[in-house]
Amino acid sequence: MSDLILLATQKLFNGEQRRYRHYSQFNHCDMTFSVYLPSRALHGYHRPVLYCLGGLTCTDENFSIKSGAQRFAAEWGIVLIMPDTSPRGDNIADAAAYSLGQGAGFYVNATIQPWAQHYQMYDYIVTELPQLIEMHLPVNNQRSLCGHSMGGHGALMIGLRNPHRYTSVSAFAPIAHPSASNWGKKAFTAYLGTNKADWAQYDSTLLLQQKISNNLPILIDQGSADEYYPTQLSPNNFANTAANKGFKIYYNLREGYDHSYYFVSSFIESHINFHATAFGL
Amino acid sequence: MSDLILLATQKLFNGEQRRYRHYSQFNHCDMTFSVYLPSRALHGYHRPVLYCLGGLTCTDENFSIKSGAQRFAAEWGIVLIMPDTSPRGDNIADAAAYSLGQGAGFYVNATIQPWAQHYQMYDYIVTELPQLIEMHLPVNNQRSLCGHSMGGHGALMIGLRNPHRYTSVSAFAPIAHPSASNWGKKAFTAYLGTNKADWAQYDSTLLLQQKISNNLPILIDQGSADEYYPTQLSPNNFANTAANKGFKIYYNLREGYDHSYYFVSSFIESHINFHATAFGL
Repeated sequence: MSDLILLATQKLFNGEQRRYRHYSQFNHCDMTFSVYLPSRALHGYHRPVLYCLGGLTCTDENFSIKSGAQRFAAEWGIVLIMPDTSPRGDNIADAAAYSLGQGAGFYVNATIQPWAQHYQMYDYIVTELPQLIEMHLPVNNQRSLCGHSMGGHGALMIGLRNPHRYTSVSAFAPIAHPSASNWGKKAFTAYLGTNKADWAQYDSTLLLQQKISNNLPILIDQGSADEYYPTQLSPNNFANTAANKGFKIYYNLREGYDHSYYFVSSFIESHINFHATAFGL
Repeated sequence: MSDLILLATQKLFNGEQRRYRHYSQFNHCDMTFSVYLPSRALHGYHRPVLYCLGGLTCTDENFSIKSGAQRFAAEWGIVLIMPDTSPRGDNIADAAAYSLGQGAGFYVNATIQPWAQHYQMYDYIVTELPQLIEMHLPVNNQRSLCGHSMGGHGALMIGLRNPHRYTSVSAFAPIAHPSASNWGKKAFTAYLGTNKADWAQYDSTLLLQQKISNNLPILIDQGSADEYYPTQLSPNNFANTAANKGFKIYYNLREGYDHSYYFVSSFIESHINFHATAFGL
């Protein structure tokens, strides 16, 4: 287990916003993430953790700066973890497109070179980062997931595959059926190859068709004016599949909202409250 | 009066975040500003306006994206106006330093060339922009000022010089005594020349020593861990002057907070509430 290097700390809502770097054993490179520690965590209480997964082009800072989540994490005493969305660096494989390579890891374990060497984001988010957080920071063993766009895909997919590890999942405008979206097809082809059986394990709508523990609380918000809603995101496919399986989820189509963080910030309070309730706070 | 060109609109907290461009008669160039219209304004009610002035290097977008102010403006039904901090463009005078030229207008009317041609930010903020807003948007004649750093200087200075035009003023980490700060000395020398009598009309601490209507409610928050606090900002000079003059202000030194928008976002709720109370909402 590598050590955490503290890069910065700033007081925020009576807690601390921090930035850390560490060497990732899975991604074989340095990774940076941000943390929000509410006051109760700074005073030694071990608190639940919400992992906040970013979308295409995002670093650990977009959700940190734009979502407004810390105000409500402070109220409830929830620790927020904002990971990066891919490995990064001059020696890391990349692509010209914003939807592939650095800033676009899609939370998968790549099996195709050159991506396979560093793009092991599924294992990084599910296994390595929680181990690191739980070893070094004042958290308990309650974990939940939240994400926006590509990060919404990550949150749903990781939650559905690991319902025993997570208390609740929420997503803003998630890429909920990536096998049917051009973003998803391009990324999955590059990272995983052309065998669609290999894609299914990373497609939330397909995962929901197969198995599922019905105990995982899921909340999805989607803006009706989001330009990516009908073609790239398709959370309605996910919601319809859930309905057909008798799997209760909370799905809200929000009239007039777009794909931006202004949309996220408008509904982040209800997402944090949703997770707080699931945590039993 | 030039027309407003709508550049973008995004739904936010059930209202709209908009961006406009217009030709400024005072600055002799196009200017861009952002607006937050709460739902009540969109439904035709004429609402009070809070002008939110940015700091060094900022555009109209920094406060818009990072402050979190819209959540509370939505609750109270307050219109927010986020102006740019200077004229901008390839043909506009600029300097290499971040504290002079584009992004650093200091809310003065420059009298020295090459700045005097376009840098007429005092008249732009006090006269031209409110005329435009009050002609084109659903606002009433109640105006207040809020600002961060250089924008805190702008808010205090403009409020003190025009107490009849503004209902209340608040500032985060303001450059409260610019004649005594290196940022202020550099900017005032460039824009106004070396005669310090010309600086005094733009220095809030000096303005407070001279006159003052005691009716203007003023709120200042300052972080104790702000690296610029002792040398560039000096809000304590302003607070001490106010105390000596028997002028009641609200001044809070906030333990451990820095100069960033994380500090602003931690206390923006209390600032919006302060203005709402002053507006009689």
